[in-house]
Amino acid sequence: MRREIIANVRKMVPLIHNITNYVTVNDVANILLACGGSPIMADDAREVEEITALCSGLNINIGTLNSRTIDSMIKAGKKANELGHIVVLDPVGAGASRLRTDTARRLLEEVHFTVIRGNVSELKTLYGEKSNTKGVDADMADNVTEENLSASVAFVQELSRKTDAVIAMTGAIDIVADGKQAYIIRNGVPMLSKITGTGCMLSGVVAAYGAANPKYPLEAAAAAVAAMGLCGELAKKRLDHTPEGGTASFRTFLIDAMSNLDDKMLEEGMKIECR
Amino acid sequence: MRREIIANVRKMVPLIHNITNYVTVNDVANILLACGGSPIMADDAREVEEITALCSGLNINIGTLNSRTIDSMIKAGKKANELGHIVVLDPVGAGASRLRTDTARRLLEEVHFTVIRGNVSELKTLYGEKSNTKGVDADMADNVTEENLSASVAFVQELSRKTDAVIAMTGAIDIVADGKQAYIIRNGVPMLSKITGTGCMLSGVVAAYGAANPKYPLEAAAAAVAAMGLCGELAKKRLDHTPEGGTASFRTFLIDAMSNLDDKMLEEGMKIECR
Amino acid sequence: MRREIIANVRKMVPLIHNITNYVTVNDVANILLACGGSPIMADDAREVEEITALCSGLNINIGTLNSRTIDSMIKAGKKANELGHIVVLDPVGAGASRLRTDTARRLLEEVHFTVIRGNVSELKTLYGEKSNTKGVDADMADNVTEENLSASVAFVQELSRKTDAVIAMTGAIDIVADGKQAYIIRNGVPMLSKITGTGCMLSGVVAAYGAANPKYPLEAAAAAVAAMGLCGELAKKRLDHTPEGGTASFRTFLIDAMSNLDDKMLEEGMKIECR
Repeated sequence: MRREIIANVRKMVPLIHNITNYVTVNDVANILLACGGSPIMADDAREVEEITALCSGLNINIGTLNSRTIDSMIKAGKKANELGHIVVLDPVGAGASRLRTDTARRLLEEVHFTVIRGNVSELKTLYGEKSNTKGVDADMADNVTEENLSASVAFVQELSRKTDAVIAMTGAIDIVADGKQAYIIRNGVPMLSKITGTGCMLSGVVAAYGAANPKYPLEAAAAAVAAMGLCGELAKKRLDHTPEGGTASFRTFLIDAMSNLDDKMLEEGMKIECR
Repeated sequence: MRREIIANVRKMVPLIHNITNYVTVNDVANILLACGGSPIMADDAREVEEITALCSGLNINIGTLNSRTIDSMIKAGKKANELGHIVVLDPVGAGASRLRTDTARRLLEEVHFTVIRGNVSELKTLYGEKSNTKGVDADMADNVTEENLSASVAFVQELSRKTDAVIAMTGAIDIVADGKQAYIIRNGVPMLSKITGTGCMLSGVVAAYGAANPKYPLEAAAAAVAAMGLCGELAKKRLDHTPEGGTASFRTFLIDAMSNLDDKMLEEGMKIECR
Repeated sequence: MRREIIANVRKMVPLIHNITNYVTVNDVANILLACGGSPIMADDAREVEEITALCSGLNINIGTLNSRTIDSMIKAGKKANELGHIVVLDPVGAGASRLRTDTARRLLEEVHFTVIRGNVSELKTLYGEKSNTKGVDADMADNVTEENLSASVAFVQELSRKTDAVIAMTGAIDIVADGKQAYIIRNGVPMLSKITGTGCMLSGVVAAYGAANPKYPLEAAAAAVAAMGLCGELAKKRLDHTPEGGTASFRTFLIDAMSNLDDKMLEEGMKIECR
């Protein structure tokens, strides 16, 4: 793993354009600032091209889709592609409704994504939509375990080849891969699933790390995934020493940890395996 | 009061569909997770029926209404009714504008709500709209006090009969009642009104408790109201030992307390009277 | 500086109507409560006039503009003008896109603002649009420093004369001025720029302070700016004693500080100079 990934973010302070859901948008903005980037949110079709042109990266999240913002996502995505910016897709809830599945599919057709970050179920939906087969994913459970790890890596790499994107599939075990190489990451704590927005926040961090390390999208994405998991671990340790602490304190500690993280801490704390 | 209400939530992890305002939506998501449920937010008319069908309960909040989401509320509400899901209405600001009052009225006509949670003023508005009389509410002040408690209980029960919903009227003293039985709850602290979203969060918790205890909507709603008040008390006690602590720490402590709450703590801490 | 500015807010509890962005709306609501006011958010064109009529002040923020809410801003602004309420403009991102610049310009043409709060770049954009000249702003850097302070004050005062509004230009050094008098404020800490929403929150506080001190918009705005900076300093001091604390704790401490602030603390802590 490259050593200066976080330092590059803090030096460049990449401005990231987010078209995201209104549930976790504040958390995304704050974690982008915490990790060393800078956020801007804009979703009106009349301004998204201009805004994305001011930025170094684009983060598209379909968490609370509506007809007004779908067009904005496409427009911004095409512009970011034209400018060679990193573009991240977070297909929140793909598979949960026809609207989300269709939108994710349309986004994949019209925009080239640098990184797609989702959970197993969302990525299986994307895969199915691209291939119309149930090949790989039919063999894969909804959670990555040590038992199905090889099959899961194979699935992620096949999805990467189909989409020409780095895939970050997050869960109890995270897999970040392109068609050639895969990182398996075992950072994180279960409490990350007890607060809203950890996935959305991670996608923002992926965009910032990628924007500041544009030649290494795979490694930047893997570092972002490991960083988020490590921050979860640090937050949980701090919580264990906080009397009466609960999930809201954990959220505060998570963002605190991200704001204090540097490459040395990440290098020492990451549990990463390269295949 | 039944003893396993919270345990049932933590066991079932009910998925709650929220169509809610963008001011407090993040708090609602986090308190739903804290109380043992799981949130999903979706408000586009093209997906709300599918989303609500995946869930065990629906929470409709009119806090930042707009024309796009009103139709979504009706659609989702009808679908949830069809499926027999708990449906909660939080008529935020009913009475403050014609749009809100009319929307609340239209929702009451087109959707059957299991529970309606609001403050005195909002519920008086709903009552007036349903009856076109000023009978009961004309005799009722804007705050429930020990002096007007009997009249207030009578009002809540009459509104319950008119709407065929459990009514949770919250304020300094809370009343949760159906047409036959009423709980009077004296938990809570004044500081709960110094942070935004305590009402919205409570409506989310009411939906989760109700979804996991579907045969006992009245008791589930009363437990949720008592739980929120108790968490406010616990948060205030913790704040009293936090140097320089203020309202933002109180908010964190409130959600922390909810994430740590169990039936035993609730049973010991609730100040509830059954009439 | 008048002595009772905060006491007046806590006594009157001014209700502030906010048409604001969905990124920081929750923070704005919570800081309004913390500073002694009360927030209401409503942005549908069918209700904004009624809602603003219930309030004592209006806070318009163009952070996540869309076609639906622009009309609401104009309508609410005209109504607030008619009623003589304080109206605050936060031209977030003016200059970053044609939509934002045009909207800010249109708002300035159709609504009279009592206070405009922005950073140097946003206010230079407003100035250029009003004057079609590059006179003053061409001589002004993007940051106010001790070296360009006189030129910066002159710019703020000229913008004040053009818009007939109190101008609060915030940055490392803040300038709050009308055409006749200027306050230079040196409160604040760099970490305020590492969390989202400090500008949006400040605009909310400006509206609350102004609504409760309607005869003194300049002094109320200056007090709000100094209060926010001082709360940043207090939050930073508290953070320095918080092991593992980071930007999320700082945000909590900032709102905590605002909820505990009184006139005496402000008077002792403000670093303000009158020119």
